Amino acid sequence: MEGKTKKIVALTKDGKEFLIGDLSKDFHTHFGVISKNDFSKRKCTTNTGKEFFLFTPCFVDLFKSMKRAAQVILPKDSAAIVAETMVGKKSVVVDAGVGSGFLAAFLANICKKVISYEVRKEFVKIAKKNRDLLGLMNWEIKHKDVKNGIDEKNVDLVVFDLPEPWNCLDTASAALKRGAFFVCYLPNLTQVKRLVEELGKRDDFVYIKTIEVFKREWLVKEKLLRPEHHALTHTAFLVFSRRV
Amino acid sequence: MEGKTKKIVALTKDGKEFLIGDLSKDFHTHFGVISKNDFSKRKCTTNTGKEFFLFTPCFVDLFKSMKRAAQVILPKDSAAIVAETMVGKKSVVVDAGVGSGFLAAFLANICKKVISYEVRKEFVKIAKKNRDLLGLMNWEIKHKDVKNGIDEKNVDLVVFDLPEPWNCLDTASAALKRGAFFVCYLPNLTQVKRLVEELGKRDDFVYIKTIEVFKREWLVKEKLLRPEHHALTHTAFLVFSRRV
Amino acid sequence: MEGKTKKIVALTKDGKEFLIGDLSKDFHTHFGVISKNDFSKRKCTTNTGKEFFLFTPCFVDLFKSMKRAAQVILPKDSAAIVAETMVGKKSVVVDAGVGSGFLAAFLANICKKVISYEVRKEFVKIAKKNRDLLGLMNWEIKHKDVKNGIDEKNVDLVVFDLPEPWNCLDTASAALKRGAFFVCYLPNLTQVKRLVEELGKRDDFVYIKTIEVFKREWLVKEKLLRPEHHALTHTAFLVFSRRV
Amino acid sequence: MEGKTKKIVALTKDGKEFLIGDLSKDFHTHFGVISKNDFSKRKCTTNTGKEFFLFTPCFVDLFKSMKRAAQVILPKDSAAIVAETMVGKKSVVVDAGVGSGFLAAFLANICKKVISYEVRKEFVKIAKKNRDLLGLMNWEIKHKDVKNGIDEKNVDLVVFDLPEPWNCLDTASAALKRGAFFVCYLPNLTQVKRLVEELGKRDDFVYIKTIEVFKREWLVKEKLLRPEHHALTHTAFLVFSRRV
Repeated sequence: MEGKTKKIVALTKDGKEFLIGDLSKDFHTHFGVISKNDFSKRKCTTNTGKEFFLFTPCFVDLFKSMKRAAQVILPKDSAAIVAETMVGKKSVVVDAGVGSGFLAAFLANICKKVISYEVRKEFVKIAKKNRDLLGLMNWEIKHKDVKNGIDEKNVDLVVFDLPEPWNCLDTASAALKRGAFFVCYLPNLTQVKRLVEELGKRDDFVYIKTIEVFKREWLVKEKLLRPEHHALTHTAFLVFSRRV
Repeated sequence: MEGKTKKIVALTKDGKEFLIGDLSKDFHTHFGVISKNDFSKRKCTTNTGKEFFLFTPCFVDLFKSMKRAAQVILPKDSAAIVAETMVGKKSVVVDAGVGSGFLAAFLANICKKVISYEVRKEFVKIAKKNRDLLGLMNWEIKHKDVKNGIDEKNVDLVVFDLPEPWNCLDTASAALKRGAFFVCYLPNLTQVKRLVEELGKRDDFVYIKTIEVFKREWLVKEKLLRPEHHALTHTAFLVFSRRV
Repeated sequence: MEGKTKKIVALTKDGKEFLIGDLSKDFHTHFGVISKNDFSKRKCTTNTGKEFFLFTPCFVDLFKSMKRAAQVILPKDSAAIVAETMVGKKSVVVDAGVGSGFLAAFLANICKKVISYEVRKEFVKIAKKNRDLLGLMNWEIKHKDVKNGIDEKNVDLVVFDLPEPWNCLDTASAALKRGAFFVCYLPNLTQVKRLVEELGKRDDFVYIKTIEVFKREWLVKEKLLRPEHHALTHTAFLVFSRRV
Repeated sequence: MEGKTKKIVALTKDGKEFLIGDLSKDFHTHFGVISKNDFSKRKCTTNTGKEFFLFTPCFVDLFKSMKRAAQVILPKDSAAIVAETMVGKKSVVVDAGVGSGFLAAFLANICKKVISYEVRKEFVKIAKKNRDLLGLMNWEIKHKDVKNGIDEKNVDLVVFDLPEPWNCLDTASAALKRGAFFVCYLPNLTQVKRLVEELGKRDDFVYIKTIEVFKREWLVKEKLLRPEHHALTHTAFLVFSRRV
């Protein structure tokens, strides 16, 4: 069980999911009421006859109940960062700005340690709340402007979700160990172009690579066998480079 | 440093990468010779004037030098499995068949333990070679047919890269803890359709979801600002479900 | 000027478009009122100060004001049919069912003649209304079930937007000249699979090809340079074959 | 029959296509020899037993045998221009530079008249050769630099496949009738950005829209039901605007 207090997930066959946080009373859904007496069962039925499966939440269940403010970095993009950099359980990662902490939380579940920098007080608060929800002891959140420097040295990955990351290249460079990755999450190609130009002028970042990642969900049910009709078609571009 | 013996990465500014395995002699590339006397430097120049940056390999560098036989599961798809299931450093994962071990190695870098099942002897051999290269002590490879059962219980994720995974659903079900994910990697939608039908008949797998993931690389250099012209447009579909 | 009665298009700089059908009175928009005295000008300003450009409608302007019932075939898919079959101004085309007539209208603007079959009376009515709006004299709409046969012979293209086109293959075959294309618009791959199987059993259709077509719109404005965030990600698959 | 001299198409069941230009002698393929005595049949077999279907070429068959030099505009992009502008058989179109004439030929098959401008002599020659092959009498090719002006007035569409189309905006504007479309085919977003900026400064072009179009081909055969593995992932961006 992750997080501080015991919780229960209630899931329908077709994927409607509820996170039950207070186990001392019945849980009300728009599919009817789940009795607190059923919380310890594998399967139960609401008073209106809807079937639910119950289990202790996995990390992903708690992740989905994270508080979000402003735009968050989605798992598809966080995972793409892992795919390209292959950080793992021995890695130390720095990210800035943390925002609601979706990227940092995703990485803290995988890496040895994540240190987040955030200059905006309200986001520090939200990120800390999310950290508590997820019970991630290896995720440190600093209320500091990353422009003023990264305290850590020899880290394996620095990720910036900043509007003008080219202003903090010295900072990233100083924190990274040789061979390690520097990644920027950038919604616009104007930002990508500027960043790549600035990186290209330097001698300490090489192997610059820009990607975007798409996820397409399919409907597979009886005669249906087709992609979903509407979807998210853009979040951001990811620019990778290696510190040498 | 991962792996058994010390190695060095030599990387050009534009991303040409070499893994130097024998540090006792000069290294020959088609960009000229890197002198063994330069291996400990940050930067060096070949006898023909090409500049290289040198550093101790990260996991990703060793991963790229893995031996591959037949079709492998690419990092973009392995990462999509992590994105959807959010397995992490506390997770225990079973995969079958292991093939060259690209998925298993990717997950072993992230998870507590990976146990691979493989019925084909030649792939067991290749996967073990790759495990040695990567120095992954938490990756166990079993020369066993997964159809005959999974020894482990209460695991957090089972991934099948099998042509007919619907024949092994009981096996997967028995190994998974409640709430955990069962994932199949399937090149064809005929397979997806069959699997989803079989899962739908059962009471122990719910929340069935099918996705595909694309990666698009961009060229960003001076006046160039465009996607690459040709790319991989299909690897496989990923079918997710949760054991309840 | 297309269509029966004179109309005027009013277009803002950023692409808000209105089709003014009654030129005898002022036109009300949520950007203010366009005075009827301005209809003959190139440019005018509403009473609330919004600038509009005015011109005689092109075919595309009338097309956008077509009445639509149920799902329509979008220009991206109609154009893909033209791209693959290269029908042109000498071509005779048959389509069924006509639906609201979006495909037929698109093709009638290009081809010599389009003959539409439709069994549902309400759609015949809508399609005829749209034909009148567009003033397409070369588009014939028949209230007939295509299953009972196509009257025309030696046509250059037959397009079916039918749920079970495999029931009408003899019909299509009889109408097509040798070398001509038979195209089916199919939302689901289960339909595609069935159709391709049925076509494969026959000796009169060869060169079977299945495609899907995507359109991605970009935002290009000052610092914005990115794809739109959300979009249509699926309409239908197009199956092509040639009558021999 | 299009083109000057009689030709025959020979097509295998799975889509291998040959255009037979000289009907006075046997035709050699790597599937064996098609006897000239079979040219008038519907179906024949080569001396090595391969079955071919024979028919008079359609426009698309001749189009596929066009000579190509440098990069050509593919039908998917030409069709996207038709989808957005809805030019048809009453439309007069100007394009520059013509290149090998793939776009112009595509449009000439649809439109009333196409006038092409091309400054490079060798491309004028190739385009004229292609025009003769296709027998398109309504396609005029001018060996003139479009920068020096377009002779035609009141045209329905101007398409530029030029590296710096922003240098010819006055030219395009002068040729177009009000409400008509101006389209640029641009491989790079740096070009798109520059063009959109220049168009935005003017009062005679509005409704600026940038798109890209993808085509994905599917394999549908027995157990295969999947997209092709590799494909073209980028050709160019299309920028649309309307002359007011």
